[in-house]
Amino acid sequence: MANILPTSADVDSAAEQIRGVAHRTPVATSRTVDARTGGHLFFKCENFQRGGAFKFRGAYNALSRLSPDERRRGVVTFSSGNHAQAIALAGQLLGIPRVIVMPTDAPAVKRIATEGYGGEVVLYDRERDDREAIGRRLSAERGLVLIPPYDHPHIIAGQGTAARELFEEVGPLDLLFVPCGGGGLLSGSALAAGAMSPGCRVVGVEPSAGDDATRSFRTRTLQTVHNPKTVADGARTSSLGALTFPLVLEHVADMTTVDDATLLETMFYVWERMKLVVEPTGALGAAAAIHGSIPVAGKRVGVILSGGNVDLTQVAAWLATRS
Amino acid sequence: MANILPTSADVDSAAEQIRGVAHRTPVATSRTVDARTGGHLFFKCENFQRGGAFKFRGAYNALSRLSPDERRRGVVTFSSGNHAQAIALAGQLLGIPRVIVMPTDAPAVKRIATEGYGGEVVLYDRERDDREAIGRRLSAERGLVLIPPYDHPHIIAGQGTAARELFEEVGPLDLLFVPCGGGGLLSGSALAAGAMSPGCRVVGVEPSAGDDATRSFRTRTLQTVHNPKTVADGARTSSLGALTFPLVLEHVADMTTVDDATLLETMFYVWERMKLVVEPTGALGAAAAIHGSIPVAGKRVGVILSGGNVDLTQVAAWLATRS
Repeated sequence: MANILPTSADVDSAAEQIRGVAHRTPVATSRTVDARTGGHLFFKCENFQRGGAFKFRGAYNALSRLSPDERRRGVVTFSSGNHAQAIALAGQLLGIPRVIVMPTDAPAVKRIATEGYGGEVVLYDRERDDREAIGRRLSAERGLVLIPPYDHPHIIAGQGTAARELFEEVGPLDLLFVPCGGGGLLSGSALAAGAMSPGCRVVGVEPSAGDDATRSFRTRTLQTVHNPKTVADGARTSSLGALTFPLVLEHVADMTTVDDATLLETMFYVWERMKLVVEPTGALGAAAAIHGSIPVAGKRVGVILSGGNVDLTQVAAWLATRS
Repeated sequence: MANILPTSADVDSAAEQIRGVAHRTPVATSRTVDARTGGHLFFKCENFQRGGAFKFRGAYNALSRLSPDERRRGVVTFSSGNHAQAIALAGQLLGIPRVIVMPTDAPAVKRIATEGYGGEVVLYDRERDDREAIGRRLSAERGLVLIPPYDHPHIIAGQGTAARELFEEVGPLDLLFVPCGGGGLLSGSALAAGAMSPGCRVVGVEPSAGDDATRSFRTRTLQTVHNPKTVADGARTSSLGALTFPLVLEHVADMTTVDDATLLETMFYVWERMKLVVEPTGALGAAAAIHGSIPVAGKRVGVILSGGNVDLTQVAAWLATRS
């Protein structure tokens, strides 16, 4: 299914493929948040997913479908962090060699975790190097299968299983807020929503500094951003992909952005009030639901808390800048 | 049942009394923690309890059993924080006026939450004032029913429902680690264990600086501590009580202590690895299970994560002191 757009049937198939291996993560609710927003919010806790983020779903779905020959040769990927950990972990479980191309400035906790899962880490400089070119070169030189972080049918279908589980558990929703970096989670979620809750408006949420997908959505022309400065390190991707862009255009109802200050306040609010450790990227959907311009009052609202891999050294710095 | 020692039947009764009002909190497990300790650990997540800590169980059990006349007059209590919030919230749900005597140095987040639940806060100075005397005076002057934070049969029985739920969910355990301040949670947990997992060794865990209960347990004579300096603000109580001391002597298998540095490292470890926000007092049991001298390898081990009400200003200060 190389570059064919995945469908909701692929999300169903991915749900079978990862069953019993990925966690079926819990759904959290909060009286405090509901009282504050006037909505009824359901938070899908992918911070409790294996590897600490939703990324394991797509990684395991993709790696477990490789042929015996591909498994022997191994895989290579590039990632700012959570996809790296996910590929490292999924490869460990499946006995597949894996090389991870990571930026030198990735949070230390993510790099350590990736190495902890037995991934071979190759570093690159965000300013100077082209990570995709490095990935392609390693693929060519060593015969490794390239598993990109989002623009891949099995990855997209796997990421959609989080929203699929959410609908299974709480039923139809009016709105679903989903963090957006390269659009894998967002397009997968939209595919799941289309099948399981056809009236649900799926909204992608980006950091303001990296609003390429929002601009792409509005203009219907692929826009890019170069190395945006944002605390949402999982959403610093330069653009949507060849698969995720058309999927977003077709299945996503709206896109919105959140500035870093609001994002950090939301992240800490989720920590303090809901007792859930989420990372900034993981709090994008929550920030839009609580502080955004799309009304949620009176509505049944899903939020994907996409990950919880924070570096406490960074947390200390963020807390120090709070007034 | 004024000052009669509660039994496991009272814990059963409390479980009925709080059903549908208190949360039945989830039980978390962690491959990482199990690999590190060699044990199989089950974490009862009372950080997700209403009010952010186990205290709501005892507070609601006690307040909901008051007579109509007592409910009209209202209640008074003294607490460093979580019991205060719990009484404020339980009183709000039951329409009972409540006065809370809190120390001036209680974490701001706890005082704000208590007032947020509509409790009337009266402050006292930990160094200068006697909070129990203030409580008794307010009780006499205003006809309020005094609900102490731990030394009360309904409070003890209510706190025991957390361990009761844990045994219901995971079955018998070899060990159960329980934070200990005044001993309400510890004695209630030991009562539940005695009925539901008779072979389980219940271990109370204190901060090293406030080791009065450990000394009381070893000497079988009530020992006290004056205003101990520890980050575990929920375990700074001066001694076990008239009810909790005999219960601990009879039903608890062992007591142990954890120093503040280990406690903070464990707290942050639970945040980073398990994505659960716990407060220092709430991490006492986890610290003993992971770093303590009581072997857990090969054992089925329960840990009560007793609360998650942290003040992020304090968190910033703690992070700043990490090497």
